[in-house]
Amino acid sequence: MQTQLKIAFIGLGNMGGPMAINLLKAGMQVCVFDLMPQAVTKLTEQGASSANSVLEAVKDADIVISMLPAGKHVEALYLGDDKQAGLISVLDKNCLVIDSSTIDTATAQKVGKALAEHGIAFIDAPVSGGVGGATAGTLTFIVGGELSHYERALPVLNKMGKNIFHAGPLGAGQVAKICNNMLLSVLMVGTSEALQLAIDNGLDPKVVSDIMLQSSGRNWTLELYNPCPNVLPNVPSSKGYQGGFMVDLMKKDLGLAIDTAIKSESFTPMGELAQSLYGKHSMQGNGQLDFSSIFSMFSKHSNKE
Amino acid sequence: MQTQLKIAFIGLGNMGGPMAINLLKAGMQVCVFDLMPQAVTKLTEQGASSANSVLEAVKDADIVISMLPAGKHVEALYLGDDKQAGLISVLDKNCLVIDSSTIDTATAQKVGKALAEHGIAFIDAPVSGGVGGATAGTLTFIVGGELSHYERALPVLNKMGKNIFHAGPLGAGQVAKICNNMLLSVLMVGTSEALQLAIDNGLDPKVVSDIMLQSSGRNWTLELYNPCPNVLPNVPSSKGYQGGFMVDLMKKDLGLAIDTAIKSESFTPMGELAQSLYGKHSMQGNGQLDFSSIFSMFSKHSNKE
Amino acid sequence: MQTQLKIAFIGLGNMGGPMAINLLKAGMQVCVFDLMPQAVTKLTEQGASSANSVLEAVKDADIVISMLPAGKHVEALYLGDDKQAGLISVLDKNCLVIDSSTIDTATAQKVGKALAEHGIAFIDAPVSGGVGGATAGTLTFIVGGELSHYERALPVLNKMGKNIFHAGPLGAGQVAKICNNMLLSVLMVGTSEALQLAIDNGLDPKVVSDIMLQSSGRNWTLELYNPCPNVLPNVPSSKGYQGGFMVDLMKKDLGLAIDTAIKSESFTPMGELAQSLYGKHSMQGNGQLDFSSIFSMFSKHSNKE
Amino acid sequence: MQTQLKIAFIGLGNMGGPMAINLLKAGMQVCVFDLMPQAVTKLTEQGASSANSVLEAVKDADIVISMLPAGKHVEALYLGDDKQAGLISVLDKNCLVIDSSTIDTATAQKVGKALAEHGIAFIDAPVSGGVGGATAGTLTFIVGGELSHYERALPVLNKMGKNIFHAGPLGAGQVAKICNNMLLSVLMVGTSEALQLAIDNGLDPKVVSDIMLQSSGRNWTLELYNPCPNVLPNVPSSKGYQGGFMVDLMKKDLGLAIDTAIKSESFTPMGELAQSLYGKHSMQGNGQLDFSSIFSMFSKHSNKE
Repeated sequence: MQTQLKIAFIGLGNMGGPMAINLLKAGMQVCVFDLMPQAVTKLTEQGASSANSVLEAVKDADIVISMLPAGKHVEALYLGDDKQAGLISVLDKNCLVIDSSTIDTATAQKVGKALAEHGIAFIDAPVSGGVGGATAGTLTFIVGGELSHYERALPVLNKMGKNIFHAGPLGAGQVAKICNNMLLSVLMVGTSEALQLAIDNGLDPKVVSDIMLQSSGRNWTLELYNPCPNVLPNVPSSKGYQGGFMVDLMKKDLGLAIDTAIKSESFTPMGELAQSLYGKHSMQGNGQLDFSSIFSMFSKHSNKE
Repeated sequence: MQTQLKIAFIGLGNMGGPMAINLLKAGMQVCVFDLMPQAVTKLTEQGASSANSVLEAVKDADIVISMLPAGKHVEALYLGDDKQAGLISVLDKNCLVIDSSTIDTATAQKVGKALAEHGIAFIDAPVSGGVGGATAGTLTFIVGGELSHYERALPVLNKMGKNIFHAGPLGAGQVAKICNNMLLSVLMVGTSEALQLAIDNGLDPKVVSDIMLQSSGRNWTLELYNPCPNVLPNVPSSKGYQGGFMVDLMKKDLGLAIDTAIKSESFTPMGELAQSLYGKHSMQGNGQLDFSSIFSMFSKHSNKE
Repeated sequence: MQTQLKIAFIGLGNMGGPMAINLLKAGMQVCVFDLMPQAVTKLTEQGASSANSVLEAVKDADIVISMLPAGKHVEALYLGDDKQAGLISVLDKNCLVIDSSTIDTATAQKVGKALAEHGIAFIDAPVSGGVGGATAGTLTFIVGGELSHYERALPVLNKMGKNIFHAGPLGAGQVAKICNNMLLSVLMVGTSEALQLAIDNGLDPKVVSDIMLQSSGRNWTLELYNPCPNVLPNVPSSKGYQGGFMVDLMKKDLGLAIDTAIKSESFTPMGELAQSLYGKHSMQGNGQLDFSSIFSMFSKHSNKE
Repeated sequence: MQTQLKIAFIGLGNMGGPMAINLLKAGMQVCVFDLMPQAVTKLTEQGASSANSVLEAVKDADIVISMLPAGKHVEALYLGDDKQAGLISVLDKNCLVIDSSTIDTATAQKVGKALAEHGIAFIDAPVSGGVGGATAGTLTFIVGGELSHYERALPVLNKMGKNIFHAGPLGAGQVAKICNNMLLSVLMVGTSEALQLAIDNGLDPKVVSDIMLQSSGRNWTLELYNPCPNVLPNVPSSKGYQGGFMVDLMKKDLGLAIDTAIKSESFTPMGELAQSLYGKHSMQGNGQLDFSSIFSMFSKHSNKE
């Protein structure tokens, strides 16, 4: 039954490409669109159909999925801009729109409301898990929107991810994602500070990591992503901070978090400090490294050069 | 064999009292001393012997354990001050000194070195786990000092605690403890900010806690000590922030951490921000509440009154 | 000569109203518009003409001045929205537009560029000096835009202000204003902290203020706006923090500053901390007080209640 | 009359040496002591007498002046340590002790109280103005202690300085100095951030400095010590950040300030942030540069190398 759903997939970048492939592997019927012809070819080689325009791609689609870099692209796609009409004018009333881009909450809500006024269902469904998770089909989806829309999306999201959360109403997916990532940045900076303070006072980072892991300092970064080189094997810090989740992506998410906090008049001093430190770290030329490389900002060795 | 060890226990406060009781329960021979007669009586009722002076209490002791409020008390006890001679002048060369006070590293090292020059073994062994852990005999001990001294202490520490770590050389116990507690304060503040940002944007704190617990925001406070009321049962936040680990104790530990960071010239901006925020929170009259009550600093409801 | 210029003034609030009155007092010909009829009546009583619509108000105007709350209002006024056409479609090519609103730089630049494409001159000219300065005609104008446009505006701005700066190209007025106000917030918080630290250690705030004024701690707030009550006469801190520059306006400006810093990838940790503290201060119900009331956040007396 | 006072001067470093020379130039009778023979020779060549020991140097002195690096040196000098007796045991009851070292308040108070118990007058009188001010005799002295002692010291301090403040009781000189320097660090960081934010948004640093100088952002650093190179002539920023007030001295003063704030339970988040940033800046190898070099931490150019 589900495999007869017609899906349009817009945006075939590092994340969108492998996500669409997983839909094809699950036997779904997918029509793809991207401005880069090579990105489209990769998908048609795997069995996708393609279209000459985005408006054509969504024709008769039951479900539209988009994976775009920023809010302005999502708004232009659905609501249009001075160059082209938005999908809002052509989508079928029974269509479900799933936007998996990580964008500002206000834009997600604006687009969702506008579509709702035309009777079109919309959920914001940003992901975490990176390119690895997209390829393996093990992404986490954090969904905002009506529960019934979330449930309609589940059979499709399950093909691309492992944990699918319903965070709340329209926009809640974006909010929950940036709250988690803001907290993650605080865990990473706080863990780096604590480890380096221990090192500066003569302790072995493996020993103190082990103690904190079994104490109240335990957190995801100590468990799976220790930022100090050579404490854990096979993590970015032990491989020159290559791979993983890039500093510039964390910087983007922290920018969205602070923007949200200013709008909701929330007090987030530690999140802002993390945003400052990641901004500074990127400014020093580390934007393409893994985000655990913030550890080097605290380390005396790497800075004295 | 071990039960024939003669132990002197100095400092019978909220923590020291129950710790000494656990030694008695294990069949050990304990001579106690405290400036408060009632504290001594509680212990002699349980089978401890007592002494008229601290110098008399440590006579013939194989092991001396101290549990005092601050570095100045520890220094005065062992090295003496203008009022009395220090234990250093009377302790037997074969004696092992275990100081379980949470104090500044410099004092721990000074006392340990001075005792070592007189041939007396010393370890710093601060604890975590609170009054509950002291009573139940489930404390965590974080030990600094020579490995052989740590091993000598194990049979005694095992009577009072469950996890006994060897953190490194003299002073390392104090360092590891404050690193862990500085990180804990960052986890608590960061989690509070993230939860409140979610709430301010319309999300349910239980839902977003659950999502972050299963994502990269996972940490000890989300698992066991959620600061938002009524997310977890039986935690201080769900009981009016009573019990647990007091704000003023966290403030003390953060003071020690920042003092250590200044001395070792470590960069700890997030630890300093946490120290500022806990200081402010205490200043507003919350010093006796559980440390998770920092959540109220971020909450709009509790502040608008 | 100048008095024959036809001026349209849009936005007659607390600031715009007295500014327009000063133009009338200088003998200029002013047509006003505001959505609030009472605001318009106040001006027509002083000799202004009025119009039924904003489009009619700007008819034949040589100079259009706008004073609106936020970027979205300025954009809607000039570029239009779904409710009405923008002034861009009706303004004369020889017209000079002066926007004195404090808004985000991006919107100022967007509007200025769009008008320029239609051959219409635009400068961003935010003010400082508050309602008092607007009434007295002693405002400071900080202007962004082409030098020749700045020079054309001078004879008009001189009627409303005393210091008229040319900060640079389009948008530079907004940038310079928020940089100044971000720095001002840092001066105010830093001065408050230093004064309270002195008080907490037994010093007299008047004495330490006098010492710092004659030393390297000297700054505008110590000179003219001491935040500690009863150090200077006739400043808000000595009058219950009434009057002056409201906390919520500082909060708005700091929001614009942080937004700008995120966009330009600038490292502004102290500005962000100030933004957090002012946000928290407003959250506690102090939004309508003068911005020097942040002093109470550091004072033990006012917080222990 | 005054020239017949017998003065003992202890500590002839970069500051103490030129200060003692100014006393000699004013015709005073000065006996000097320092552990470095060359430092003593420089002074005896200018007419000072010298002594074989510090105890001999203060014999018959009416006034003792000390200028030492840290609290521990001051305490050892006056109260003694395990190597030597303190001056407290030999000073005449009529003697006035002036300690011009910048040290922690607690030590200043401890030494002053101990001397007072022996009937010896003591003031803490830290200076600002650097080596230049010490040489030119234009230092600022900030004095803590009894008013009558302050007045007794004035004729001597006037020979070495220009502005002599009485800050309050014993220790108040140290407190006022660190409050001023903590504020100065905040002015410097805040001004650097604001200037760089303006630069990053296309403004000329001279223009925006000029605007802020005439607006509410005005402060000592903009007036006399602009941290952006080539805005002001003849300041450290225009000379490669050479000379002036070293980063490591600011770091020392901020360490004293934070230590004081922790003890007095004061809320100083901005001071702590400044302390963190100066610590980080020193860690990166800039400890010997002028403290205005913190500007480079915000500048994109200097960091992208």
